[in-house]
Amino acid sequence: MAATGQLEGVIAPVVTPFGEDGTADAKRFVEQAQWLLEDGCTGLAPFGTTSEGNSLGLDERMELLEELVDAGVDPAVLMPGTGTCSLSDTITLTQHAVDIGCAGALVLPPFYYPNPTDDGLFRYFAELIEEVGDDGLALYLYHIPQMSGVGYSIDLIQRLRGEFPEVVAGLKDSSGDWSNMERILTEVPDFDLFPGSESYLLAGLKLGGAGVISAVANVNARAMRRVFDNFESEDAEAFQASVTAFRKTAQSYPLVQGMKALIAHYRNDPVWADVRAPLLPMPENEIREMAARLARDHDFVLRFTATT
Amino acid sequence: MAATGQLEGVIAPVVTPFGEDGTADAKRFVEQAQWLLEDGCTGLAPFGTTSEGNSLGLDERMELLEELVDAGVDPAVLMPGTGTCSLSDTITLTQHAVDIGCAGALVLPPFYYPNPTDDGLFRYFAELIEEVGDDGLALYLYHIPQMSGVGYSIDLIQRLRGEFPEVVAGLKDSSGDWSNMERILTEVPDFDLFPGSESYLLAGLKLGGAGVISAVANVNARAMRRVFDNFESEDAEAFQASVTAFRKTAQSYPLVQGMKALIAHYRNDPVWADVRAPLLPMPENEIREMAARLARDHDFVLRFTATT
Repeated sequence: MAATGQLEGVIAPVVTPFGEDGTADAKRFVEQAQWLLEDGCTGLAPFGTTSEGNSLGLDERMELLEELVDAGVDPAVLMPGTGTCSLSDTITLTQHAVDIGCAGALVLPPFYYPNPTDDGLFRYFAELIEEVGDDGLALYLYHIPQMSGVGYSIDLIQRLRGEFPEVVAGLKDSSGDWSNMERILTEVPDFDLFPGSESYLLAGLKLGGAGVISAVANVNARAMRRVFDNFESEDAEAFQASVTAFRKTAQSYPLVQGMKALIAHYRNDPVWADVRAPLLPMPENEIREMAARLARDHDFVLRFTATT
Repeated sequence: MAATGQLEGVIAPVVTPFGEDGTADAKRFVEQAQWLLEDGCTGLAPFGTTSEGNSLGLDERMELLEELVDAGVDPAVLMPGTGTCSLSDTITLTQHAVDIGCAGALVLPPFYYPNPTDDGLFRYFAELIEEVGDDGLALYLYHIPQMSGVGYSIDLIQRLRGEFPEVVAGLKDSSGDWSNMERILTEVPDFDLFPGSESYLLAGLKLGGAGVISAVANVNARAMRRVFDNFESEDAEAFQASVTAFRKTAQSYPLVQGMKALIAHYRNDPVWADVRAPLLPMPENEIREMAARLARDHDFVLRFTATT
């Protein structure tokens, strides 16, 4: 299924825990990442939107990534977010990801200037690729225009694919716009499309999609994996209906705070619920309500002891 | 006129030159900064929007700032942009600015997450101030919602002023919304308001404003200074009319590219015209047209030899 890249399946944008002093907490981070791989994730995409990646410092991102690899996580399952507003900082983070052997890098377009031209974005990526060099570099474009204000047009994707076919490996589409995902799946050959929501997982797979990269995979990867592993079976629709329903409930709460809240609740570790400003954590009573509602409506319990 | 901060007058968000290899060019940068201070600027605000500050790497920003001070520019005239999406990186840059003695730091709100709450933004600034410490720290809030997507409400300004009166010194209002500037000038006491456009310079000064921080000060500071120095004289309106008219012509071209284009043209140094992706430089014929039009309609010639 995967065309040019090594990554496929269910990929979690790992949430980033902060310790009592507000700094990124490598110990909890590594523990959670390892658990996600046990829970069914085929890959990890730290430093995405759900990870509060843009709230982390450059040094924090690089240190956390190194901690993962030092702890034994195979870099071949890693697709860290490396896109910033600045070409220089994006080169620094992308080069670092390549140097430690990550399977890919998930790259936001530069998002400070509104409405950049496709020519300007093309130049940005051409310079990024030239600077990092294409040996071992696999870029996944991160399309989330409702957050970043800047997206990837189909024209730009085609142009980047045409010029850098060995490097530009795929795209995460978090726009929520199925017609855009469908166009990419049908019009861009040999390109790994990951919907940013598991609601489109089965529909994507049927058109050759590579899997899913979803916030909710932080707590519900196992169920998504059932869709991915069985997408051609007669149970696929029922498996999909289950993850779609779960997501619908989950996203009635703020997703970043909600994922962390569920981990805090089931790990019995309130520190997990914190987020970095400008975000604010979910109040305790809302955390309890969310957990209770998911348990009641979706039979959901998070088990952090190894269950495999 | 200036209330809490040391800075007032005409402040230029210095444009950032890139060398032939695309890296920030410290030599040209320092030369231009020194010329701006000769040309009438009372202060410099490197790494704002016009400076392509968010297209620079953290290291580049710190190095360029050190080059300025090493070359003899008094840090008491400097108000570098230090606001990023990330609290950690913003702390790094702000601490660095304080350490080398800058008069202030111009801080964008964290701008990745759309619609942060005022409570979340307050927490962000409280943590920034706590981390950097308030000894010698003067923050100027950078309000440019049409670029950053996130602005400062009057409520938030009042709350930050109330909690950190020694630190939160002023605001640059680049919204272009005079009614917002007027409210800040009349409702927030002892607070230095800098319009982001010289079109509001005289009107601001009449209500106690601190001056102006404008892209166009990169080429027209001398004329703005005439307004600032004579704002209570009978010639003030005529001086203001001249800078307003100049700006109107200038901003019919893209301002970042336009400022650099004029410097390239009058320095006879085409390297100056380049910008960093995702921006693209102005085509040569447009540069010539812009220069010719400003010369014809505004008697404008840029002289880079010392004229004082």
